Amino acid sequence: MSLSEKLARFIVNTSYEDLPEDVVGFTKLCILDWLGSAVAGSSKEPVRIIDELAREMGGAEQASLVTGGKTSLTHAALVNGAASHVVELDDIHKSSIIHAATVVVPAALAVAEWMNKSGKDLIAAVAIGYDVCFRIGEAVSPSHYYFWHNTATCGTFGATAATAKLLDLNEQQIVHALGNAGTQAAGLWEFIVDGAMTKQLHTGKAAMNGLLASLLAQKGFTGPSKILEGDRGFFKAMAETFDEERISDKLGQQFKITENSFKIHASCRHTHPAIDLALKLKKEHAIRPEEIREIRVGGYKAVYDITNNPNPQTVYASKFSLQFCASLAFVKGKAGLADFTEETLWDPAIRALMERVKLTVDPEVDSAYPEKWGSAVAVETQQGEVHRLTTDYPKGDPENPVTADDLVQKFRELAAHLSDSEKNRFVDTVLHLESVSDAADFWKERSRST
Amino acid sequence: MSLSEKLARFIVNTSYEDLPEDVVGFTKLCILDWLGSAVAGSSKEPVRIIDELAREMGGAEQASLVTGGKTSLTHAALVNGAASHVVELDDIHKSSIIHAATVVVPAALAVAEWMNKSGKDLIAAVAIGYDVCFRIGEAVSPSHYYFWHNTATCGTFGATAATAKLLDLNEQQIVHALGNAGTQAAGLWEFIVDGAMTKQLHTGKAAMNGLLASLLAQKGFTGPSKILEGDRGFFKAMAETFDEERISDKLGQQFKITENSFKIHASCRHTHPAIDLALKLKKEHAIRPEEIREIRVGGYKAVYDITNNPNPQTVYASKFSLQFCASLAFVKGKAGLADFTEETLWDPAIRALMERVKLTVDPEVDSAYPEKWGSAVAVETQQGEVHRLTTDYPKGDPENPVTADDLVQKFRELAAHLSDSEKNRFVDTVLHLESVSDAADFWKERSRST
Repeated sequence: MSLSEKLARFIVNTSYEDLPEDVVGFTKLCILDWLGSAVAGSSKEPVRIIDELAREMGGAEQASLVTGGKTSLTHAALVNGAASHVVELDDIHKSSIIHAATVVVPAALAVAEWMNKSGKDLIAAVAIGYDVCFRIGEAVSPSHYYFWHNTATCGTFGATAATAKLLDLNEQQIVHALGNAGTQAAGLWEFIVDGAMTKQLHTGKAAMNGLLASLLAQKGFTGPSKILEGDRGFFKAMAETFDEERISDKLGQQFKITENSFKIHASCRHTHPAIDLALKLKKEHAIRPEEIREIRVGGYKAVYDITNNPNPQTVYASKFSLQFCASLAFVKGKAGLADFTEETLWDPAIRALMERVKLTVDPEVDSAYPEKWGSAVAVETQQGEVHRLTTDYPKGDPENPVTADDLVQKFRELAAHLSDSEKNRFVDTVLHLESVSDAADFWKERSRST
Repeated sequence: MSLSEKLARFIVNTSYEDLPEDVVGFTKLCILDWLGSAVAGSSKEPVRIIDELAREMGGAEQASLVTGGKTSLTHAALVNGAASHVVELDDIHKSSIIHAATVVVPAALAVAEWMNKSGKDLIAAVAIGYDVCFRIGEAVSPSHYYFWHNTATCGTFGATAATAKLLDLNEQQIVHALGNAGTQAAGLWEFIVDGAMTKQLHTGKAAMNGLLASLLAQKGFTGPSKILEGDRGFFKAMAETFDEERISDKLGQQFKITENSFKIHASCRHTHPAIDLALKLKKEHAIRPEEIREIRVGGYKAVYDITNNPNPQTVYASKFSLQFCASLAFVKGKAGLADFTEETLWDPAIRALMERVKLTVDPEVDSAYPEKWGSAVAVETQQGEVHRLTTDYPKGDPENPVTADDLVQKFRELAAHLSDSEKNRFVDTVLHLESVSDAADFWKERSRST
């Protein structure tokens, strides 16, 4: 049995009823988290351009755009996929290095809306899509990641898996679809040198390409049967080393979506454990910034290498400055998207505190990395009191989970420009998605506003 | 200066007026040759499916489909790109291993029609598109070709180059566009094991993706500046070995489109030199099949390895049978698309002659391969006369060029189902393309027939 056949059988044999309760609950949170990122990203420049182009090309009114109105399935996947990755707050699966939501959810939502599938069907499709791309990403990580943007390349398979489920493809059709997903998989890291807009093209195209593979298979279009393990297939062409076993290990028994991590703070993930501790220390000891003599942060080496920036000059750079992020947490008591601004960047209270942040490599924390992304933060007051906290995982990792309330709060911040009624309706719809009979209701209000 | 910058400068600085006369003439023949393949392929199953899907997704009426009617630029590139590769009679550039027409021409034609560009602009864009993708293909050949379908991967850059020219992008925009062409480049050979329909998806998507990169760049979308030579770029990610020098060698001084080869016979290229000689022998000596005692074909080793099939059972297999192809040439006096049928496959005269074909490896012919794809054919009559001919190149190679009349004849065969007036009009339009003031006239009749 080829790997594609194993995955196809898993997809055909898995329905909403097969999902454990925690998987259902977790999947809904993934969808809500996706939606916040998509809404927040919908007016950013790269998204605006892709959206404008999609509107010029036009398309049948099949699926809703997060930017308003409806378009073809493929264009909806393209635009919504681009929108949901741009504010860099979307979910991340560490062992496959994939942001699955931004590729899987747009493709799945488009088909679910078009076919008036139930909320339960949508939940199952998303859980399946995550599972398939996480497994493929794990099989090729870390070597694939050097050149390739896993979210785009492996994500394409996830979009295919989710949409194949919603389209009720049979095993043979799914094998073809996965084959044509893999042969379209693309996305090189080269753009990162220039900080180019390419990242949004990657996620939008991955959602669109994965969907396209499923739609073609439904019409009888054939594809390679061993796209993963074949001699001229995805693994051998695109990964120095790979591990086929990861594809079928506990396939159908353990849903990997619950291994997913959420980002609460709007900064580089490496700053998160220290921000978590700073927020906790501020709250537990009611510490005011001016009372602080020194903040001592001990991180793993990557924290020092990537986020040791005592004097960031742009909002973007401030998200990669541990000194800024820790000070922001002590001054503002939060570090969400709305807290990284020109105002906070040059806030005198934050700037004053930044000078009192000492960042070092903590040997104990460092030895546990990368299994644990920990931190040790000590705050010393002007009176000489020292409060110290440590953590092994940033908040949002499965080992240090966020609550549904945390994610609802995050969604409300990301969707700040929507009306309260629209925000409420979105939260209500997603958190009760299993009782939604027609997935088209998801976008009920949005699809009217162009 | 990065390689993308060099290519961008070349594209900006090259116009119709810079093309030597032979390049103009040759480019028009490439377009005519493309059109025949596209028309002949337009009703084949993989194309029918892609066309049906594109129509379901819908799109603004911007550009014509070879299948009839109009759709968006991107869908026109997708469908027309898929259509023109399926009958396997499209052009080939040996040193880059690229079929350029099927990717470059559909993208260029769509934009030229949409923008009502002149025939001269279209000619320049196609010549530029060929040049850019041939150079990139040469830079990564042969190592890239093991896993990757050069026509799709390198072809994407060609579609971008041609459309960037037609959209009048500036140097910086073209650098961005080439960056986002390379990051979308995809197409694995794995499908060949299954003989899957994927090949048509590759060419259609390459045309569409390359066009998409240009359209985005026009709107200000940025891309990686060193997509070719960058540390995580196309060369290093996708080729074991590569030669950067090929990109700029005589760039702007020597147009590589004239190195292109055309296929006249509808069979495997390795059968072509022997078919050429068989046709010549039949004609020169007025040999009737029943007069033949033996046909002795000496080829290079690949001819023997790939086309030694004395008893083909399908029309497809007959195109890879030297015995069949040589006999067909002696019996029918041609070997075009219309000559490979169930009727000829089981024709008693052809079958009888096939038994008298002796295929061997000719040491002299073999030693000149692969620079020369030669053949030595001797025909011995029942009366004991022996006529012998040799050739170094199949007809259609630049060293053994076809005439415009040959290609017009090929077009008429491939477009057999069109009316005579439509065929005449197409031939007339393409052969006088430099005097066409509006490229939209190219499709004048076709765009009305849905």
